[in-house]
Amino acid sequence: MSYIVGVDVGGTTVKLGLFSEQGDLLEKWEIESHRETDKNVKRHRLLWDVAQTVKEKCAERGIQKEEVKGLGIGIPGAVRDDGTVVDAVNLGWGIFSVRDELSEALGFDKVAVSNDANIAALGEQWKGSGSDYDTIVMVTLGTGIGGGIVLNGKIWNGTSGAGGEIGHMKVPGDRLCNCGRRGCLERYTAAAGIVQNATELMMTREDDSVLRDAEELNPKVIFDAAKEGDPIACEAVEIFGDRMGFACANICNVINPQAIIIGGGIARGGEIILDLIEKYFRPRLMTALEGTVLRLAELGNDAGIYGAARMVMEK
Amino acid sequence: MSYIVGVDVGGTTVKLGLFSEQGDLLEKWEIESHRETDKNVKRHRLLWDVAQTVKEKCAERGIQKEEVKGLGIGIPGAVRDDGTVVDAVNLGWGIFSVRDELSEALGFDKVAVSNDANIAALGEQWKGSGSDYDTIVMVTLGTGIGGGIVLNGKIWNGTSGAGGEIGHMKVPGDRLCNCGRRGCLERYTAAAGIVQNATELMMTREDDSVLRDAEELNPKVIFDAAKEGDPIACEAVEIFGDRMGFACANICNVINPQAIIIGGGIARGGEIILDLIEKYFRPRLMTALEGTVLRLAELGNDAGIYGAARMVMEK
Repeated sequence: MSYIVGVDVGGTTVKLGLFSEQGDLLEKWEIESHRETDKNVKRHRLLWDVAQTVKEKCAERGIQKEEVKGLGIGIPGAVRDDGTVVDAVNLGWGIFSVRDELSEALGFDKVAVSNDANIAALGEQWKGSGSDYDTIVMVTLGTGIGGGIVLNGKIWNGTSGAGGEIGHMKVPGDRLCNCGRRGCLERYTAAAGIVQNATELMMTREDDSVLRDAEELNPKVIFDAAKEGDPIACEAVEIFGDRMGFACANICNVINPQAIIIGGGIARGGEIILDLIEKYFRPRLMTALEGTVLRLAELGNDAGIYGAARMVMEK
Repeated sequence: MSYIVGVDVGGTTVKLGLFSEQGDLLEKWEIESHRETDKNVKRHRLLWDVAQTVKEKCAERGIQKEEVKGLGIGIPGAVRDDGTVVDAVNLGWGIFSVRDELSEALGFDKVAVSNDANIAALGEQWKGSGSDYDTIVMVTLGTGIGGGIVLNGKIWNGTSGAGGEIGHMKVPGDRLCNCGRRGCLERYTAAAGIVQNATELMMTREDDSVLRDAEELNPKVIFDAAKEGDPIACEAVEIFGDRMGFACANICNVINPQAIIIGGGIARGGEIILDLIEKYFRPRLMTALEGTVLRLAELGNDAGIYGAARMVMEK
């Protein structure tokens, strides 16, 4: 029997999955991401931890390294086709080859590396709500907006590892983004952006709103209030829908995917999220694109390890 | 010796090129596009005319059909990967297989079909201003806005043949487009859109402008007046630059190409076109995309036949 390891590196935890050669998930586990302050120490420490836990898991199950077909890993940052991480800002890494470091540490035949949003997209296309299609774009709504592109069953990293940077697509509006530019999608549709939609309305409107008395404003509170018909919340989420619809239509005009998959923590709000995006997406689509499907993601936090493993199965 | 034929079908003429197997252009010529009113007659007539002129050229040069490696053809409409034309609106065609019809008529080993904007993009990537790169997006500025995407040296048609429909990307604004939607790029940046930028300003501003006395308003007149500092013309072309910069930045956030190539009749305005787009494109790019190059196309009307021939050379 032969095995594949899928790894999804996040800011606070690293998720890992052991898969059969056929792609069945046999076991999943997590380790903590170390919070070293020195960049070089941190990246080596993290990859060392990954290598260590994978070795331990193999030892525990009596798996020889020759039995492991390969390891796939997703990193939060721009990754080039050659496995070089360009700027994993959240992890504080510089430019270096994750592929080379892990190959050396583990001695597996294949180490495949991509961006965390890309492996989630590949996971959904393979085993999740995109499994009816081979060309999809996944948009992950959370603290930021991630984007992953899968063309004919393969991740498209872009030529400098910045393909699918959906969160920094421009939409109408000029809010300043952390990236230094203005009018980025995530300033209206990621967590802080949705909150800003509401707070700006609260300052300019007189309407009563439960949001005015909320202990904490976050997307869940706002979407829940919108479901109850709260006027400020309703308008705040319409802004979310409008900008998401705008960006998704533009993605379709470029890529013409079969489906756009909406995932991430905010998408767990469910049908209201999909309905709001549809409302502003569909009317902007030209006729030739009308067949494009919009769906919620299905795999949740497991999408990444599935996609990471899938990279190893690709030729 | 072995040959390749490249064909670029336009609204009024069909351009053809005879290439060596290595991709050298040996001869180019044109025929008229027939203006039949009946759709079925028209499409058969046009393909029959193409087949006929190719046969005649081969006979004239004593080329046997076994010596022809294949024919590539670009059509103004959505073309799927299988060579099916979905909606060649300008030609009045329905859904049918250009590949099958031409293969049968000519008996060549390979017939490759794509969209006219896509073959122009491939031509520029192969032999034109994109030849330093393997992943480019070409934007063709003319009566409408065409878009072609080349990923790793191959055309990306999109899943329903509508990939690279740049002209119908959404930009800020709500002008009604011929496609039935609002806020499409070409309403601000194609010929009629640029004229509308100017006419709207002429109605709302008091400024003197040479455009008020122009016999005919067209992009050339407007760009020429802008070069002379005419206030209305200057503002009209800034709107052009802003919307182009907006759309090009969004293309980069999705595809992350190495270069965007600007072509078409309007691009023959030269450096002013490139400067205007750069002005509004560069400040919208996130750091990871800053290496993206913006260039004018080089091959002019020949881009299409080059790209058509190139499709035959691909594996």
